[in-house]
Order: sequence, then structure tokens, then C-alpha cells
Amino acid sequence: MIRVAIFGFGNVGRGVARALTNNRELIEKKIGKFEVVAIADSKSSIHGDVDLKYAVEYKLRHGRLPSDVKADELMENVEFDLLIDTTPTDVFTGEPGLSYIKQALSMGKDVITSNKGPLVVAFRELFRLAEKNEARIGYEATVGGAMPVVKLIQRELAGNQIFRLRGILNGTTNYILSRMEREKMPYSQILSEAQELGIAEANPEYDVKGYDAGAKLVILANTAFSFDAKFSSVKIVGIEDITPEAFEVAGEKGYTIRLVAEADSRGKLEVSPRLIKMTNPLAIYGTLNALLVETDLAGEVFVIGKGAGDRETASAIVSDMVDIYGRDNGH
Amino acid sequence: MIRVAIFGFGNVGRGVARALTNNRELIEKKIGKFEVVAIADSKSSIHGDVDLKYAVEYKLRHGRLPSDVKADELMENVEFDLLIDTTPTDVFTGEPGLSYIKQALSMGKDVITSNKGPLVVAFRELFRLAEKNEARIGYEATVGGAMPVVKLIQRELAGNQIFRLRGILNGTTNYILSRMEREKMPYSQILSEAQELGIAEANPEYDVKGYDAGAKLVILANTAFSFDAKFSSVKIVGIEDITPEAFEVAGEKGYTIRLVAEADSRGKLEVSPRLIKMTNPLAIYGTLNALLVETDLAGEVFVIGKGAGDRETASAIVSDMVDIYGRDNGH
Repeated sequence: MIRVAIFGFGNVGRGVARALTNNRELIEKKIGKFEVVAIADSKSSIHGDVDLKYAVEYKLRHGRLPSDVKADELMENVEFDLLIDTTPTDVFTGEPGLSYIKQALSMGKDVITSNKGPLVVAFRELFRLAEKNEARIGYEATVGGAMPVVKLIQRELAGNQIFRLRGILNGTTNYILSRMEREKMPYSQILSEAQELGIAEANPEYDVKGYDAGAKLVILANTAFSFDAKFSSVKIVGIEDITPEAFEVAGEKGYTIRLVAEADSRGKLEVSPRLIKMTNPLAIYGTLNALLVETDLAGEVFVIGKGAGDRETASAIVSDMVDIYGRDNGH
Repeated sequence: MIRVAIFGFGNVGRGVARALTNNRELIEKKIGKFEVVAIADSKSSIHGDVDLKYAVEYKLRHGRLPSDVKADELMENVEFDLLIDTTPTDVFTGEPGLSYIKQALSMGKDVITSNKGPLVVAFRELFRLAEKNEARIGYEATVGGAMPVVKLIQRELAGNQIFRLRGILNGTTNYILSRMEREKMPYSQILSEAQELGIAEANPEYDVKGYDAGAKLVILANTAFSFDAKFSSVKIVGIEDITPEAFEVAGEKGYTIRLVAEADSRGKLEVSPRLIKMTNPLAIYGTLNALLVETDLAGEVFVIGKGAGDRETASAIVSDMVDIYGRDNGH
């Protein structure tokens, strides 16, 4: 029996709860029985043999969970095997996820996180801690939602030397830029519409300044090149200054503009708006994400998928569960 | 120490030997030390602690390997842990790979194969045999070359219900069709040119009749839907009857024609030329392969990559080695 604690119970945490409920049979076939023994958000919690449906409904109705017991107390008092961390990202401090993850790893518990913060603040430190305590870390959900890019790099291209990564790693900015390209409307107007549609956050800085893409790039580059890069290692330029005129000039020569995240094996780490050919596979439209991996044996491998969304992120988290606890690894 | 036997020493087998030579350090970091203890082609062999460079050069120079000892004898007399089967594909009998794989699995040896034949003839039988003998089978190399489609389905989308697979699974036919689309030249002329370029085989039937795509579809569908489909389960139509005029008519309405392989969870298994919109992500050009996977949680995941080539196939085989013997699975 795998005992699971879920910390963070916003959209992603609830998406995980729903995936574990709806696809329980499928998942248990692959990893054996599991139960969720604790769920905590920033101020409340529930523990015991948690009824996931009840927890999701309670949270949606009351904006909190039934118990006042805090996450820290649960961490110390509830027996669990796996922490699923879906707390909100802070790329500067890594908190609150960073402390939870360190504590869980120190106790030899496995961790699966969708939170970029801890990994861009303390990537190697966390992996050393995991190794020392024979615990495992899954972080597929931190980059590219349902696109299996972390395992693509770690596993599927395991025998390859990776030279370069180039990707569209933020759906919100890609949505804005691809609409600017097609409709030649100003940045601010499309941003407002995207906010109304729920595609951009009320506070869009994190996306439009390129921070989100930068954080993801750090995680991918550390995975591909064994770097110990931090968020501060990335050169970042956002999309706020791009004008419809820039798209017109670019378009006349067959180019468009996208927020490209690029890392190479020599240490380059950069997120910035780039001119790319319309025919470039990275010239994707809408909120999609994409990643191009350049290798010695496999050549160029290209993945496209939905980069965000609670179901997509939950899919990545479940894939990490199967990866860590799968009975038939090797089949 | 992992002791490896390689059966089949054509382009793919030699590609594996080269990958194991060039990337040995990288690979050994992930799976520990390995040595190749035997290599066999259809009529000759070499065994001992095999010098891979020597073996490749000998084969290229002499068209054979130095010893007259046959593969069957090696199977019985050489101690090994892993059989890498790169023998040629026969979708009707599965031989010669099928017998080798059965024998290896019966002895509890792990198997990695790039040969579609055994899997389209005896998919479930082989997995039952593996389970019984606690052996593992890797077959990423049978489909899509460097595209990690098998593990994408098995692992990364492990928590998902998969509804449908649609793909371009044969590079040769895609090359022919995409040139017919652009240049409006007749099928036979482009085929001849593709043969001159080495993109199509001297005997192109296997590709142009859709057999290769059909075999790959069987393997993917068995993986995704737990079917026990055989090659004969697939409805297959090839591309030989497509005319340049068909492309003209299609093009006027924004469509093109591709050889689409499609399987769904209700049992559909079909390879046939289809009208698809120019904007469909499957409307790729040249020898690329692509696969679109429709799921409940992850939505649509789309992968593009080089579908063939000795380096690409070797990359997939090495990824299976890391998958089976990886020390840090779960990291």
C-alpha cells in the first residue's frame, strides 16, 4: 500500500485527486494499491483514509478543508510514503514547497512535485538529499504539462549526447504572440482578452516577463546537461515591448516572433522573443508548448502538447507515480 | 557487468555497436559496466570480449564476421544477460528473430529488439514468456526510430485512458506522398528517385503496400490497448494507386493525402491513404514520422521525429538498455 500525502490543494492538487479517483483501477494495475492519507492547503487539511471526492467538494464549497491541522504538523505526525507537492511556485525562495520537500526527503519519503520553485532554487541539493536518504524525486509536472519532456531527456534519450534544447515553454505568452501575429492587435488588448478568457492570470507578470519559461528552462537544462543552474542563471527578456509592427516587418520576410527558451551544453540559458521562420516547428499557435531536442544519435526529436491545465499536470504526476512505483518497469 | 549478445549485424546492429562504442561512458554512468560477448549475423559470428570497432570493420570489409559458429550455437554456449535482436523483419513468420527471442526469454535472458516481426506474430505470447521467466522485453526500436512512442504510451501516459492513436509511421511512403503533393509528379517517378537516394528499398513493397506501417500499428495498439492483435488484424491499403491528380483535387480544398495509421480502443486497426487538412499536424513532409495520442487527462500529445536510420534505431535500443538496467530509475 502506497500512502500518499498531497500538499497544495488548488487546481493542480484537485486535478491530481480527480485523476486518482477516476483512473484508480488503471493506476493500481500498474503500481498496486494506494491511499491518500493526508491533504493540506496553506491553512487547513484533512487526514485519515481520505475520501478524495469529498475533499474536492468540501474545498470547492468552503474554500478550505475541514481540519485546522497545518501541513507542518501533518508532515510530522502522519505516516506516508509519497509527498505530492502542488504548492504554488515562487522562483526566488522556492517556498513553501522547498521546506516540505526537504523535510520529506530527509525522512526518506519519495517526492513528486509540480512546483518549479524548489527545483530552480535547489536542484542539486534536493537530488543529493534524495540520494542520501534513498528517496526519489519526480518532477515531470514542472515542465510542459502533459508533454513528457523530463523523461524524454532522462530516459528515452538516455544514450544520447544532448547538444541543445529549444522550446516554447509558456502557453500564455505563446497565445498572446500568435494572436498578435494573426490579428495585428496591440499587446495590451490581447492580454486583456486573454485575462478575461482565463488564459492569462490577473497578475500576468510571471508569464509575460518570461519568468515561467525561464524556470522551466533551468529545470530542463539541469536535467539534460547535469548543470546546477538557478533561476538567476537565465538571461530573460519578456514579451511586453513587442509591437504589432514588429510582426508585420517579420511577416514580410516569412518570419514570426515567439518567446523561445534555449539552453545548450556549453552553458547558454536564455529566454527571449526571437524571430523564427513561419515554417519552423516552434512556430506553433495558441497555448501549446513545444520542445526540440538536438542529440547525437536520435537527431532532432520534437514534442508538442498542452503545456498547462490541471488534468494535464495531473497526468504528469501520475506518470511519475508509475515511474517510481511501477511493477513492470522494463516491460 | 551486463553481458550483451547482438544477433543481426546489418545497419541497425552495427549502429548499436557504434553507439555502444561512442557513448560507452555516458551509458555506463547510467547502467553500469557492460560488455558485448557475442555478435552473430545470418551465417557467421564473433564471441569473447568482443572489440566492437574491430567487429564493425571486419563485417564491412568482408561482408561477414570472422567465425563460422552460428547464432544458435552461441545462444546455447555463450553466457549472456541481454539479447539485442536486430535481425530482419518478417511480418508473416516473425523469423528468425522470433525463435531467438523465445529461446532467450525461456532462459530468463532480457531481450531488446528492433525487429517488428516477432511482436506482430506473437506479442502476448512473448510477454507471457517473459513474465514467467522474469525476463524483460524492450521494443522501443520497433516503432518510430528515435521517437519515444512506446515508452510514451507505456509510461508517460500511464495514468491516462488512451482513446485513439493516429500516426505517420512509415518514412518512405511519407516522402513519396509529400513530394507528389509539392511537385505533382507521378508515383512511379518519385519512387525511382527515392530508390536512387536510398530512401526506398530496391524492393519497396514492404513500405508502399503499407505493411511496415501496419506492423508498427499492431505493436502500438497492443501496447496502448492491451490487445493481442496480429499483423493480419490490420486493414491495410497502400499508396500505389494514388495519382498526382488526386493531390490537385485535394489541394484545391486545403487537403493533402497521407498514409495514416489509426487504431482506437474499440478495436479499429487501419492503415490507408487519407485526405487530411494541410493544417493537420500529421501533414508532415519528408521521411519524418509522427504520432498523435488522444487521452483523457493529457489531451492530445503529439511527437515528431526521425522514424528510421541506424543511429536513431540505436538510440531507441540504448534507451531500452537504460530502461531495463538503469540504476537511478525514479530520479
